Amino acid sequence: MTGAECLLRTLLEGGIDLCLMNPGTSEMQFVSALDRVPAMRGVLCLQETVCAGAADGYARMSGRPAATLLHLGPGLANALSNFHNARKARSPIVNIVGEHSTAHLRYDAPLTADVEAFARPVSGWVKTLSSPLEMGEAARQAIAESLRPPGQVSSLVIPADHSWSESGAVGAAPELSVRRLPAQARIEPVWQTIAGAGPAAIFLGGSATGAAGLRAAGATGLPVFLNRYAARVSRGRPWAFARRLAYFPEHAETMLAGLRHLILVEADAPVSFFGYPERRSTVAPEDCHTPLLAAQDEDGVAALMALGGGAPLPPEPEPLNLPGDGPLTVESLGVVLACLLPEGALVSDEMVSSGEPVNTALNHAAPHELLPVTGGSIGQGLPVAVGAALACPDRKVVALEADGSGMYSLQALWTMARENLNVVTIVFANRRYRILDVEMQRTGAGPVGPRATEMIDIGRPALDWVKLAQGMGVEASRATTVREFTTQFESALLACSPRLIEAVL
Amino acid sequence: MTGAECLLRTLLEGGIDLCLMNPGTSEMQFVSALDRVPAMRGVLCLQETVCAGAADGYARMSGRPAATLLHLGPGLANALSNFHNARKARSPIVNIVGEHSTAHLRYDAPLTADVEAFARPVSGWVKTLSSPLEMGEAARQAIAESLRPPGQVSSLVIPADHSWSESGAVGAAPELSVRRLPAQARIEPVWQTIAGAGPAAIFLGGSATGAAGLRAAGATGLPVFLNRYAARVSRGRPWAFARRLAYFPEHAETMLAGLRHLILVEADAPVSFFGYPERRSTVAPEDCHTPLLAAQDEDGVAALMALGGGAPLPPEPEPLNLPGDGPLTVESLGVVLACLLPEGALVSDEMVSSGEPVNTALNHAAPHELLPVTGGSIGQGLPVAVGAALACPDRKVVALEADGSGMYSLQALWTMARENLNVVTIVFANRRYRILDVEMQRTGAGPVGPRATEMIDIGRPALDWVKLAQGMGVEASRATTVREFTTQFESALLACSPRLIEAVL
Repeated sequence: MTGAECLLRTLLEGGIDLCLMNPGTSEMQFVSALDRVPAMRGVLCLQETVCAGAADGYARMSGRPAATLLHLGPGLANALSNFHNARKARSPIVNIVGEHSTAHLRYDAPLTADVEAFARPVSGWVKTLSSPLEMGEAARQAIAESLRPPGQVSSLVIPADHSWSESGAVGAAPELSVRRLPAQARIEPVWQTIAGAGPAAIFLGGSATGAAGLRAAGATGLPVFLNRYAARVSRGRPWAFARRLAYFPEHAETMLAGLRHLILVEADAPVSFFGYPERRSTVAPEDCHTPLLAAQDEDGVAALMALGGGAPLPPEPEPLNLPGDGPLTVESLGVVLACLLPEGALVSDEMVSSGEPVNTALNHAAPHELLPVTGGSIGQGLPVAVGAALACPDRKVVALEADGSGMYSLQALWTMARENLNVVTIVFANRRYRILDVEMQRTGAGPVGPRATEMIDIGRPALDWVKLAQGMGVEASRATTVREFTTQFESALLACSPRLIEAVL
Repeated sequence: MTGAECLLRTLLEGGIDLCLMNPGTSEMQFVSALDRVPAMRGVLCLQETVCAGAADGYARMSGRPAATLLHLGPGLANALSNFHNARKARSPIVNIVGEHSTAHLRYDAPLTADVEAFARPVSGWVKTLSSPLEMGEAARQAIAESLRPPGQVSSLVIPADHSWSESGAVGAAPELSVRRLPAQARIEPVWQTIAGAGPAAIFLGGSATGAAGLRAAGATGLPVFLNRYAARVSRGRPWAFARRLAYFPEHAETMLAGLRHLILVEADAPVSFFGYPERRSTVAPEDCHTPLLAAQDEDGVAALMALGGGAPLPPEPEPLNLPGDGPLTVESLGVVLACLLPEGALVSDEMVSSGEPVNTALNHAAPHELLPVTGGSIGQGLPVAVGAALACPDRKVVALEADGSGMYSLQALWTMARENLNVVTIVFANRRYRILDVEMQRTGAGPVGPRATEMIDIGRPALDWVKLAQGMGVEASRATTVREFTTQFESALLACSPRLIEAVL
């Protein structure tokens, strides 16, 4: 058995049966071994950033790691920004990177780079295999490390000769660590906080933003706020009482104003996305206490349930009425989405400046799950949608994508077409890095002059998303009115193949 | 004057008047300052890999650095693979990366990452600014370091508060280091080698692969070989005598067979691109001496001229005849290119598996310059073409691009349209990572099975490059016969705006 085959078999033993890849020469042994290890599914992506983002989306929805298979340092380099996002999402991923054969490495051939140095900033665990005999054990360890709570990227670098040489034994399934319940000493004072004086609220992140965590948090009777950058959040009417903290710090401050206690569950105390002149980074009131109920690697849901509390959940908002026709705006588009989104849909959200009105409308939608931006590196939305669709083939995935962000990883559309994934992509085409108009003011850079505005304008030439999607095999259409959008979105929801709608705003 | 304005003014003092950017909030001050410093040209790219590759192409053609302006660690991460290529090309680049404001950094906001750790593997010099008062001096140093022979990426990380705060003085133009002539002690023994026993040849890289170096090398009367991965190479009929070393090691070995001396000029002894089982990495004969005439940071052209030698250059090959019609193949396409390529054209070469026949045909073309792959990280060809066109607006740029490679950085097409760059892109659409069919055999991975072949096939669905180009505002057409290709290429050569031809092979 070659090292490559040993790797694939060890991954399978450890429950990994999906490998997102963009292989090259040094990974050919793994590709070849796919024919001998048919239980491993290989999915090809045309740029490595798609592999990393898809593995993130897959992990968020399945709770299990996928493997990524990348070509040397430069192949890994292309994936780093979405690995950054995956790191912030605490997604478990087993990242396999091929390396030159050990004898070849010293010659500084063109592709030679410091693979470990590229891997370290985004990985919780990095190892370069030093012998093919180690393969099974190293892969077992990589799986175990990826699943160490709260989850992380583990990177295993494999010199080509170790994949083409005879290996040792296949690694056994690793023993997995699980999230621990926080000590009673942590829970007791929080209980007293709730019973005691001064307004209190709960701030949820990590694994506590799903239905179980929201229900348990709501049962305390306290207001519930959500980490805006949590990896997977239950949303829609039943969960509208839990409010996502706003992007801009002054809005977040208003939401939290007057609180004396903000109880942290798998979350750090909230901070603003960017720092600004003359403004602090934290957004809770300065005299607000932030007791920790559960750390990020602990079981926040169990801790919330241990708190007890039998308060009824707040009443649900009403469903909205489907508008007839009218101009297509972020607001009207949000209402249509809220009316038509099917129960159980998975929404990958990278709307950036369009996000606020749409997310507000989605509080009136059927129950669904939101996969937000986690690390802020744009180009995450479409790949995450790919991964979510691979994890949940029976659920509709809706990718809400800004046009600027979508361009960072548009290659994801090809993998949607190739794998016939059940994804509707909606591109919010405002033809501008709109958020930067606002941010420029906020950083004190003054009014946007004519030369500065050129660096924010992506509408010259206008991107034609219909052609871009069709160029990668995805059926696409353009909507400029509410009626057009409604018709196209209804049709896309009925389809079992990927669609893209360019919503011109 | 803000730190941002001080930076732009210092860059201008140092001769940098082009900034390739994809800015975000932390870089808004620089964008705003463009209106106060109009001599700095900002060019927007829709993914950072395009910024890095374009800066590489610009440096190769102008000999001067461009600046890149990137958004925090994740924005830099997207650019790393093309910075890897630029590092191998020895291209001078001043890479500016925004960072969170110093007060905000400690809060681990979503975009927080280890920026320096990302920068180090691709940079010869890295510095994080510690005060706005340092801005002028730090930027001056960054320019000087980028131009330190043979050229490198210097990365300057700038916290947002240092760009919005009052700065110190604008930095003066740096004193630049220049390539030194190698010591006579190096030149003398090489002269004796040439005069002495045993077959000898010259191996050129670095700055010695232009017309002056080729002429001086040819005047020695020795065979001349070129580093296949040199950054900028004079090609066409006058320079056909100088042969690019083949990609596959057995072919390179055949080219060098029988040599007793291979004189290295701004190049290391040649090695194969990958290591393979049972095969050594070096390609010169094992008993071949490899005396160093000029190191990579020395002046190889002056050293060659110091060698003297008045041998006439070998006779030029004949021009080829333009074929009438026939099936479009790599061979027939190469002949059309060789017939029609205008003198002085700049050819960005990322043809991968299609390269050998086309490059052979281009030996019969008018004199032109080739910008090859340098670091082997695919996705370099289109961005390098952008940079070459920005450096040389009066010359025709022809990007010869494999379909697989082109997909890594197709966003470059938008910048071509936006800046109305004089680039013809020819996509070699064989709808496969064709090179990997060969490489799979060579790594001993055995025959390509049905599941393995899926990971090499990029034709399901087929990419429609005409739509992809049109989607980004580039006029495009598809050619399936020699006549169609000839007509379309002739038309594209007459145009002053970007074109793309999908050559279906």
